[in-house]
Amino acid sequence: MQYIPIFSKLVEEFEKLPGVGSKSAQKMAYYIISADKSVAKAFADTLIEAKQKIRCCSVCQNLTDKELCSICAGDKRNRSVICVVEKPSDVDAIERTRDYNGLYHVLHGLISPMNDVGPDDIKLSELLVRVSENDISEVIMATSPNVEGQATAMYIAKLLKPFDVKVTGLALGIPVGGSLEYSDSITLARAMENRREI
Amino acid sequence: MQYIPIFSKLVEEFEKLPGVGSKSAQKMAYYIISADKSVAKAFADTLIEAKQKIRCCSVCQNLTDKELCSICAGDKRNRSVICVVEKPSDVDAIERTRDYNGLYHVLHGLISPMNDVGPDDIKLSELLVRVSENDISEVIMATSPNVEGQATAMYIAKLLKPFDVKVTGLALGIPVGGSLEYSDSITLARAMENRREI
Repeated sequence: MQYIPIFSKLVEEFEKLPGVGSKSAQKMAYYIISADKSVAKAFADTLIEAKQKIRCCSVCQNLTDKELCSICAGDKRNRSVICVVEKPSDVDAIERTRDYNGLYHVLHGLISPMNDVGPDDIKLSELLVRVSENDISEVIMATSPNVEGQATAMYIAKLLKPFDVKVTGLALGIPVGGSLEYSDSITLARAMENRREI
Repeated sequence: MQYIPIFSKLVEEFEKLPGVGSKSAQKMAYYIISADKSVAKAFADTLIEAKQKIRCCSVCQNLTDKELCSICAGDKRNRSVICVVEKPSDVDAIERTRDYNGLYHVLHGLISPMNDVGPDDIKLSELLVRVSENDISEVIMATSPNVEGQATAMYIAKLLKPFDVKVTGLALGIPVGGSLEYSDSITLARAMENRREI
């Protein structure tokens, strides 16, 4: 069906989605074409509506459909701790632990000179304003333990030095349920280094 | 982000697509929300436009954006042979072989009493009209070699009995590049049964 221009265009749109190859994109396009008209309509409307309604929380930059996200607006949160993450889905991941009760700050990216992303391209100044204007006792850097994540964490820790705030990072070690045998040696070295009394 | 209703709705829309689970759907939704406004707009417009423009060819029922599909409208095709397939993507598969030069007929489904699909729910009467009104020498049943595919082929072959037309089916056997060792015994038995002199 690749010779129908609008069909090819539909396949291309699906291919832009993360994790979708050309085969899957074709299957999706066939699904839309074979399904009832209302399916395509509902899909299109939801895309537009979601994009229109969802914006960044004015405090923590997490996604929300209101002025403040539900975490910033909630009154049961410890407002003196901020957990800094790369993207909104990281907030979901930490919320799923049901173990953290502080606030968040979503950077919407990591500093990466290789990809031409500097400190001004992520929501960093907003974090500094929050720390300077509020009574914050601890900032937890929860960026991913890769090169960009660690570099961003280091950079932010340095910027926060002048403020009277404790800056911490997530513990590195062997994942629960993981096998010692299959752990990479850097992780194992970190786990050994950060061993705790039991 | 599951607590934002329109975000959950967007995730649900993506989950409806074939082969998309909840994790992938979430990733796709995050991609749309993070991307530029024009991305969602272009996607939504394409969905609507594709659904509006693409329809069934009035002759072979394959998808097209015109009255006749490019195969039925082409003048280099052998118009006395019709290959009957289940769905439009099957036409693509056969076209990719560059080995078939006849016309097609897309049933848009298979007879399946289990799923409440009867002969009237697929484009079967259109096939009978074509065979009766045109000078057709052969009908190739190219439905998938599963229960519904075979049953549909048998049913159609019976209906075509009164017409002076040869009804054939695709050969069953070991796939090219396949291994004898890993072939299932039914396929192997068919391959043995249909052996050819070399």
